Amino acid sequence: MSEVIATYLVHDASGNLQKKAEGIALGLTVGSWTDLPKLDQEQLLKHKGRVVAVEQFKDDPKVNQYLGKSVTKGLIQIAYPSANFSSDIPAILTTVFGKLSLDGEVKLLDLEFSNDLKAVFPGPKFGLQGIREKVSVFDRPLVMSIFKGVIGRNITYLKEQLREQALGGVDIIKDDEILFENDQTPFEARIIEGKKVLDEVFNETGLRSLYAVNLTGRTFELKEKARKAVQLGADLLLFNVFAYGLDVLQSLAEDPEIAIPFMAHPAVSGAITPSEFYGISNQLLLGKLLRYAGSDLVLFPSPYGSVALDRKETLSIAYELTKDDVSFKTSFPVPSAGIHPGLVPVLMRDFGSNSVINAGGGVHGHPDGAIGGGKAFRAAVDAVLSGRKLTEYAQHNSELQKAIEIWGYKEV
Amino acid sequence: MSEVIATYLVHDASGNLQKKAEGIALGLTVGSWTDLPKLDQEQLLKHKGRVVAVEQFKDDPKVNQYLGKSVTKGLIQIAYPSANFSSDIPAILTTVFGKLSLDGEVKLLDLEFSNDLKAVFPGPKFGLQGIREKVSVFDRPLVMSIFKGVIGRNITYLKEQLREQALGGVDIIKDDEILFENDQTPFEARIIEGKKVLDEVFNETGLRSLYAVNLTGRTFELKEKARKAVQLGADLLLFNVFAYGLDVLQSLAEDPEIAIPFMAHPAVSGAITPSEFYGISNQLLLGKLLRYAGSDLVLFPSPYGSVALDRKETLSIAYELTKDDVSFKTSFPVPSAGIHPGLVPVLMRDFGSNSVINAGGGVHGHPDGAIGGGKAFRAAVDAVLSGRKLTEYAQHNSELQKAIEIWGYKEV
Repeated sequence: MSEVIATYLVHDASGNLQKKAEGIALGLTVGSWTDLPKLDQEQLLKHKGRVVAVEQFKDDPKVNQYLGKSVTKGLIQIAYPSANFSSDIPAILTTVFGKLSLDGEVKLLDLEFSNDLKAVFPGPKFGLQGIREKVSVFDRPLVMSIFKGVIGRNITYLKEQLREQALGGVDIIKDDEILFENDQTPFEARIIEGKKVLDEVFNETGLRSLYAVNLTGRTFELKEKARKAVQLGADLLLFNVFAYGLDVLQSLAEDPEIAIPFMAHPAVSGAITPSEFYGISNQLLLGKLLRYAGSDLVLFPSPYGSVALDRKETLSIAYELTKDDVSFKTSFPVPSAGIHPGLVPVLMRDFGSNSVINAGGGVHGHPDGAIGGGKAFRAAVDAVLSGRKLTEYAQHNSELQKAIEIWGYKEV
Repeated sequence: MSEVIATYLVHDASGNLQKKAEGIALGLTVGSWTDLPKLDQEQLLKHKGRVVAVEQFKDDPKVNQYLGKSVTKGLIQIAYPSANFSSDIPAILTTVFGKLSLDGEVKLLDLEFSNDLKAVFPGPKFGLQGIREKVSVFDRPLVMSIFKGVIGRNITYLKEQLREQALGGVDIIKDDEILFENDQTPFEARIIEGKKVLDEVFNETGLRSLYAVNLTGRTFELKEKARKAVQLGADLLLFNVFAYGLDVLQSLAEDPEIAIPFMAHPAVSGAITPSEFYGISNQLLLGKLLRYAGSDLVLFPSPYGSVALDRKETLSIAYELTKDDVSFKTSFPVPSAGIHPGLVPVLMRDFGSNSVINAGGGVHGHPDGAIGGGKAFRAAVDAVLSGRKLTEYAQHNSELQKAIEIWGYKEV
C-alpha cells in the first residue's frame, strides 16, 4: 500500500483515544464514512485514512496538574493513502499535521513512508562516505570548527581566522549561521578568498580543510546562488533550512547543477521541537526528514553544553541519519555546542566514529589559539582511537594538556 | 536606527534576566565586547545588539512544578542592528530566533521593525479593501464557505458543491487545504470549471462568489503555477504557507505577474505557536508576519469551536492584521472552525465588520444543504446589522430558523 503512517503523541481530554484516532483518520481524509452511500464508499475506499494502532500510557499527574485537566496520554498511528497528496513534503505535512497541529495537545513523532514514496526523495547526494572521500579520512570522526565573532569584520579578518583553524588540522570549517550577505565579506568573496587560504595551508601542511559557506538570501534566488558557489569551487553549503522550508532544501539538493554537499543548521527548529505536547520530534525533523530531503551533514545541539538537548533525543537524531536504508545514503551527525577536547571520549562513546566533532569556543578559546584548539581535538581523537586515556596522551601533547587544564575532561 | 527589536518571553533558571539579556544581545551579534580592543569596539559598535528592556514577572508555582526547576518568568527585549542581516525573513528569523530557539524556555512574542526595514516587505497586494471591491461588499463581514469531503471526488462533484455554495450567497468559497494536485480535480480544471459555475450562478442570481483555489506543489514550481492561475482567471489563491516558508509567500506576493490575492491557511502553524514556553506567538506569526509577507486574508482557529484558540490570542491576530500601519494595507481576519449561523452575533462583537465569517459544517450541515447554510449565514449577518435578535429575525427566515434549531445561538 502506498501510504504515509504518522505516529502522534497525544494528551487527550476526551479519554477515548480509539475514537479520537478514528476521527483523525476520517477527518483528515474522506471526511465521513458510515453515512456515505455504498457506491461512494467503494469509490473512496482507497482514499480513506486507517487507524493503525492506538496505545494508551499511564496517567502523568504532573501533566494533568500543569494542563489543568485530566488527559489521557498515548500514541496514535494513522495511515494516510498517498492517493490523497502529491509527493512533496508540504503536501504530506499539511495532510498529516496541517489542521491537526492546531487541535489540542498533539505532537508528531514519526512518519513512515512506503518505499514508492521514499523513492521520490533525493536523500544526501554525497552522504557520510562522500564527505569522508572529500577529506580522505575514513577511520575516525571528523573534526570541525566554526568561525567566531565575524559579524562586522572584514575579509582579511575572516581569512586569518580561516587560516588559523585550518592550520590546527580540522577537517571542516563552517561559517557562522548568522553571517549573511554583507559588503565586507560577500558570499562569493568568502568562497574565492577562502579557497585560496585553504589551498595555501594545504601546500604548507598537506591538509586541505573544507569550508562550509552560508547559503542565504531570498528563496527564489538560492538556486542561482548555489550554482554560482559550485562554479566558484565552494566545498560545502551551510543552510538554515528551518528558516526556509524542507522543500527548499530538497529542491536544492535535487538540482544536478548544485553538485555540492549540504550541511543543515538547526536554527529556528527549536520553535518546533522542544515541547512534549506540541510540534514535531527532533528524531523526525532533524533526523529523518533532513536526511530524506538531502542533507549530507546535520548539526544539532549536543547533550553536553549549555544549549543542550536530552541525550536520548540526540541519539535518536543520529540513529535516523545513519541507520541502514536502501533508499538513501547516510548523513553525518554533528552534535554541536559546548564541545571541548575533554569531551571527545564521551562524544565517541555516544556517536561513534561516524560523526563530526564540532566546536567553536573549544577551538578558539585554546591558549594557543585556534591552531592549538584544532590540534588538541585531533590529539584527543587519536588518544581515544589508540585506546589511551586523555590524561596519559596529554603528557606528550601540550595542546591537549592545555585544553584539559582549562576545560577539564571526562573519560568513559 | 535601522533595527529589529525582538520581544521574548523567557522562563529562566539562572534567576538573572538582565545577565541573560546581555548574553543574548552580544551572543547573537558581535560575540563578545568588554575584552575587545578599543579600535575593534569602534568598528563593531553599529553591529552590537542592545538590551532594550527586561521585565520580571512573579513566579508561577504551576510552571516551576511542571518544569521541575525554579524559573524566573519575564520579558526580554533585544534590538538587533539591521547591519547584521540581509533584509529577508529567513535572515531575520535566524538572527533573532535561530540558535536562541534551541536555548531553553524562550518564546518569540514580537518583532518590531524600523520603518526602513518595513519598506522591504510587500504587505497585502489587495488587502481588505481590495477584496471588498472584488465582491462589491462594503458594509458587512464577508461570508465564506469551504468545500467538504472532496478528496477522491471528481470534477462534477466539485462543481455541484461549488454551485450549491454560491447559490447560498456566500462571498468566497475556498478549497479544502488538503486537496492537492490530483488526476480527478486538477488545479487548472478547478479554476476553469469553477469559473464557469460561478459565472452561471452570477447570471442567475446577480451574485458572483470568489473561489480560492489551493496553490500546492514543489516550491520552485509555485510561481509558474500561480501565474498560470492568474492567466486562467482564478479569483484567489489559498496557500499553506507554514508547510513552505514565509519567504515563499512573500516572493509570490511580490511577483507583479501574480496579480491575485493570497489567502493564508494556518495548517502546520500549530507546531510552532501553542506552547507557553517555546515557539512563536500567534500574534506575530499569523498576524504581523503574514500581513508583512503579503497575505490578503488570514485564516486562524476561532475561539468558539472544538479546534479553538484562546479568545485573546485570536483578537491579537485580528488586531495585527487590521491595525493602522502606513506601510501596509490591512488583511482580512478569517476566524475559522466551529462556526454556525447562531455564532454570528458573537463573531461580529469580537471581530467586527472587517472580518470574514467562515464555515464548513455550518454551511454544508444545514437541513436545506449548502444553499440553506449560506442563506442562514447571510440572514444572521443582516439580523445583527439591523440590530435585531437572531430569534426574532428567524421568525421570517426559515433558513436561519432551521440553523438555530440545529446548532443553537448566542446573542450578545
